[in-house]
Amino acid sequence: MSTNTYQVTGMTCGHCEMSVREEVGEVPGVEEIQVSAETGTLVVTGPAEESKVLAAVDEAGYSAVRVG
Amino acid sequence: MSTNTYQVTGMTCGHCEMSVREEVGEVPGVEEIQVSAETGTLVVTGPAEESKVLAAVDEAGYSAVRVG
Repeated sequence: MSTNTYQVTGMTCGHCEMSVREEVGEVPGVEEIQVSAETGTLVVTGPAEESKVLAAVDEAGYSAVRVG
Repeated sequence: MSTNTYQVTGMTCGHCEMSVREEVGEVPGVEEIQVSAETGTLVVTGPAEESKVLAAVDEAGYSAVRVG
């Protein structure tokens, strides 16, 4: 199972985490999400396309880059 | 028309503003709400009871004191 890590800019609180979680959760192939506003980290498990994960984060109102 | 100003602790982003706005908007007598996470200010217009406004902010997950 693939796990990709993204650095997300702009999350400040639990509401922000929830927004990212909701949008990324709609991406096909996403099976598990870990997200932390404190560290700005998003970890996505499952066969989801990176471009779609990035687009979902953008849709939530933040920006991300894949770092691992 | 009375206007009361509160200082709210803990709001960090627009989602936080929205949470406060939603809860305070349910208080009887509230006619207009201005809220800013940047300044931590909540301005409530209308004949609402201070204790109910404070309780609504608490319900949203923040704390407030009346300052004006």
